[in-house]
Amino acid sequence: MELGEVIVVETRDALGGVITPEQPLEKLLAEGALPPFFNPVTGPIYVNGTSRGDTLVVEILDIKLGGKGTTVNLPGFGGLTAPYLQENLSAETRISEIRNGSIHFPMADGSVIRIPIKPLIGTIGTAPQLEAQLSTKPDRHGGNMDCPDVTVGCKLLLPVFVEGALLYVGDVHAAQGDGEIGGVAIESSSEITIRVNALKKKNIGWPRIVSENEIMTVCSSASLDHAVKAAFTELVLWLEDEFALQRMDAYMLCTQVAKARICQVVNERHTVAAKFPRRILSHRESASPGSSL
Amino acid sequence: MELGEVIVVETRDALGGVITPEQPLEKLLAEGALPPFFNPVTGPIYVNGTSRGDTLVVEILDIKLGGKGTTVNLPGFGGLTAPYLQENLSAETRISEIRNGSIHFPMADGSVIRIPIKPLIGTIGTAPQLEAQLSTKPDRHGGNMDCPDVTVGCKLLLPVFVEGALLYVGDVHAAQGDGEIGGVAIESSSEITIRVNALKKKNIGWPRIVSENEIMTVCSSASLDHAVKAAFTELVLWLEDEFALQRMDAYMLCTQVAKARICQVVNERHTVAAKFPRRILSHRESASPGSSL
Amino acid sequence: MELGEVIVVETRDALGGVITPEQPLEKLLAEGALPPFFNPVTGPIYVNGTSRGDTLVVEILDIKLGGKGTTVNLPGFGGLTAPYLQENLSAETRISEIRNGSIHFPMADGSVIRIPIKPLIGTIGTAPQLEAQLSTKPDRHGGNMDCPDVTVGCKLLLPVFVEGALLYVGDVHAAQGDGEIGGVAIESSSEITIRVNALKKKNIGWPRIVSENEIMTVCSSASLDHAVKAAFTELVLWLEDEFALQRMDAYMLCTQVAKARICQVVNERHTVAAKFPRRILSHRESASPGSSL
Amino acid sequence: MELGEVIVVETRDALGGVITPEQPLEKLLAEGALPPFFNPVTGPIYVNGTSRGDTLVVEILDIKLGGKGTTVNLPGFGGLTAPYLQENLSAETRISEIRNGSIHFPMADGSVIRIPIKPLIGTIGTAPQLEAQLSTKPDRHGGNMDCPDVTVGCKLLLPVFVEGALLYVGDVHAAQGDGEIGGVAIESSSEITIRVNALKKKNIGWPRIVSENEIMTVCSSASLDHAVKAAFTELVLWLEDEFALQRMDAYMLCTQVAKARICQVVNERHTVAAKFPRRILSHRESASPGSSL
Repeated sequence: MELGEVIVVETRDALGGVITPEQPLEKLLAEGALPPFFNPVTGPIYVNGTSRGDTLVVEILDIKLGGKGTTVNLPGFGGLTAPYLQENLSAETRISEIRNGSIHFPMADGSVIRIPIKPLIGTIGTAPQLEAQLSTKPDRHGGNMDCPDVTVGCKLLLPVFVEGALLYVGDVHAAQGDGEIGGVAIESSSEITIRVNALKKKNIGWPRIVSENEIMTVCSSASLDHAVKAAFTELVLWLEDEFALQRMDAYMLCTQVAKARICQVVNERHTVAAKFPRRILSHRESASPGSSL
Repeated sequence: MELGEVIVVETRDALGGVITPEQPLEKLLAEGALPPFFNPVTGPIYVNGTSRGDTLVVEILDIKLGGKGTTVNLPGFGGLTAPYLQENLSAETRISEIRNGSIHFPMADGSVIRIPIKPLIGTIGTAPQLEAQLSTKPDRHGGNMDCPDVTVGCKLLLPVFVEGALLYVGDVHAAQGDGEIGGVAIESSSEITIRVNALKKKNIGWPRIVSENEIMTVCSSASLDHAVKAAFTELVLWLEDEFALQRMDAYMLCTQVAKARICQVVNERHTVAAKFPRRILSHRESASPGSSL
Repeated sequence: MELGEVIVVETRDALGGVITPEQPLEKLLAEGALPPFFNPVTGPIYVNGTSRGDTLVVEILDIKLGGKGTTVNLPGFGGLTAPYLQENLSAETRISEIRNGSIHFPMADGSVIRIPIKPLIGTIGTAPQLEAQLSTKPDRHGGNMDCPDVTVGCKLLLPVFVEGALLYVGDVHAAQGDGEIGGVAIESSSEITIRVNALKKKNIGWPRIVSENEIMTVCSSASLDHAVKAAFTELVLWLEDEFALQRMDAYMLCTQVAKARICQVVNERHTVAAKFPRRILSHRESASPGSSL
Repeated sequence: MELGEVIVVETRDALGGVITPEQPLEKLLAEGALPPFFNPVTGPIYVNGTSRGDTLVVEILDIKLGGKGTTVNLPGFGGLTAPYLQENLSAETRISEIRNGSIHFPMADGSVIRIPIKPLIGTIGTAPQLEAQLSTKPDRHGGNMDCPDVTVGCKLLLPVFVEGALLYVGDVHAAQGDGEIGGVAIESSSEITIRVNALKKKNIGWPRIVSENEIMTVCSSASLDHAVKAAFTELVLWLEDEFALQRMDAYMLCTQVAKARICQVVNERHTVAAKFPRRILSHRESASPGSSL
């Protein structure tokens, strides 16, 4: 695709579409018919005019969801495996209807709980610098970050490591809580509309997000402690580099007003987003507009 | 004090009130005059009629702040010590004025940034089950959780491990970001008004918070990953025990709608609050009101 | 006691002597008769002439074992609790006879396996700098390090934090593997003969051991990674300070010839000993004998 | 190659041979001439007759070292990077002569310390199950384990994940301490003589080693705590499966007599070997010889 172009990308749900009311997870497990891989992504998309050392800017213009959302409990998978409480929960499938702005989540007793739709792209990234990594891993190149802030209206900034960037997307969730604790959100097929641009020769260490109200850095690590501290380090440096804040000011202000979101504690690396409110920056943005906004 | 009684507790700031414009941290460090201990708390307060195995319910009715808020950068302390970026930042003191609903935070260039006041009690707890622990540690008994949700209007539930509970409070912050990344928020003296009750023979494993809109569990651990997973485990079990949700329902709903707050990554144990929105529970609360609400 | 004095200390086994063939763990658990605390230590022993900032030198001259060694599997305790394999093992007691230089360990099928006796002191320490901590924790003051190198013939160096040092010992093992993976070794009562001296105004950050062939540093942390790295840092600094090695030499030599022992991964903090062979140092020791040897 | 065949494999040193007395690391860094990758391996070697689900048995018959051993301090690399002590050590190169059974390690003051030669293969593995991973990572397929027990006289057992196994070797060390704390041992080119066999349809979860005196399991993880516990879990299960020990016996015996070696704390995943002495097993081996010995 070309820089500045708007494209629509179709994605399958993270379970590859194999779970249906007629084919629930329980049945697939019993029959040994579970596919070996999950989390399909659509791509790679070659972005003309991008090369190593650039930053890709992905504007998320729209996320159209399919009419169904699939949630399963897959034994041995998720954020609460042993020694936490998942080991006493058996395989189970819940398929929600998605309509009229709500997810209609079916409860065990047959009742339905309505959950507001808040769609997000769970997996979005460029090709990593090295290795051929599974789509289930998040890292510096993005990937399976499961960050609820990757949603309509935001700009996602991703480092470019190879010529053409090799963008891919998938794993859309109709809604997801912090941590995605059970490992499987309201998984839905989708049509995603994005516009892609690039900041040439702009090097960022980790994905960043610019939303209407916040700037965010998104880091992933096998240790959540490290992910948080790396994300805040990136955030302080960003405030220093592009928002005319002295480092001590940025560091101390983050201590008072920053937010942090635990995106997921489910994948091999866990993901945290550190956030700074743009209103605090407003009088400074005019003087020195962040080049990436 | 008696159960049901309302009391006002005066607290010093977490720096013990020793940092002043005339006596900034830089000067104390240069003179070797830094006190050996920080984080003074007021207490212990013996609560008549409480004993091991009860739950203390502390309603926070008001937090009156002093007129000044102290923030310092203490080299070697905080969430971003080496290998992160604090090692290049020297000792520094910033004293904010607190008035008219805002914190007037002084920037390095002489300008002032206004931060909304959102007071919280950083350290509040009962006597731990074992050992004599420093007030700087959070654990099952509460302590230095630095949780922004411990604020006016909430009920904080704390396990009682010893006769009389031995409640204490201190370390009030006029505002604090998630993670309290620099280790020192807007530290202020305060007058805290609380009402204390107890749930007799009600055993909770970790502190809980009930606010107008959410129920929360608060866990602390040397590993943030463990703190998150312990907090969500507690939350699922609470939903099962008191809100008539089957465990699988609670687990799957948490995956879609729960929030998690990183309270602090500064103390020896890090703290996370897992949160569930009460509106999702509303039709069920009427049928089976949570005994602790 | 006086500096230079030799004393004999009697210790109970880590289970407090309550487990016997007639009263195995299984029976105590079934009857709810398990004592609330374990790991009794003998002490504190006030050492005249020691004060904060000194180093205590404990020479271990002899360890006489009782005739029995107790091992149990206590569900939920040890290094392989969930998600590892202990959860499928029920409570069990094995009592070994200790005689003729061997531990006669009873196997499930009635046979006996002979294990060589290698006695060690599991818990030995001074009073910590702060707090009143359980005897089950290891830290800078020593404590429950479960280090097999704390044995007859070694000198153990411990930091002194309070006047009189307040030495204590207990938790003797007739033998113990690295990691003490099941959490309960061959636990035995004992009579320990020690001579105690002090290095005045000699400040060490963590316990050290000098044996016939090695010098060792012993660090404990909630994270084993940190314990290893702290122990090697201490070892490099010790080689630099007392053995006339330049820091780069010490660092690079450690990379080639140092050993590391995982002492235990069972207690709240895990323990590692980093070791350097004295023969490598031999020509240098003569020039500049380490003051603590 | 064929099963049962003996082959000789030539390997370059882990620095790719680019560091020489004329071209020390300091000079390469100053000139920006450092190659982007390290740790070259020789292979992959397709082993006829092996397929997914088999175990490869690599007998190490001989390791011939080159005459030089290279050690460097590369700032920002190794086990003691910030917050430990490496940050104050600048880039440096030390080249040892390897002759007459000793490594002649040059000290800063011009003297030489003789270190006994104990060669080991730092990197040896099969193709991983998924992804294309760097040679610097250890995992279930082996890889950069830096285990001193992978040496002449041992049998290394590796899981086979793909047809032909795709064996590779490299990164030979003339000597290496536990933890390889500085990240660079005595790196040497080599000629390695190995014989390769397979256990068909024998599935092992992690690499195993059988030496004259011990059986060992080798696990790697981003967390050293997990690596230790995984290795001991594998060891207990191996004792149960192949050495006719009941699980409780194996678990309790490991607690008393097992050893653990910290192989390295330098790579993205850290490596631990858990070891059990064969003499304890001797009377049982005769009854039920471990199929893999």
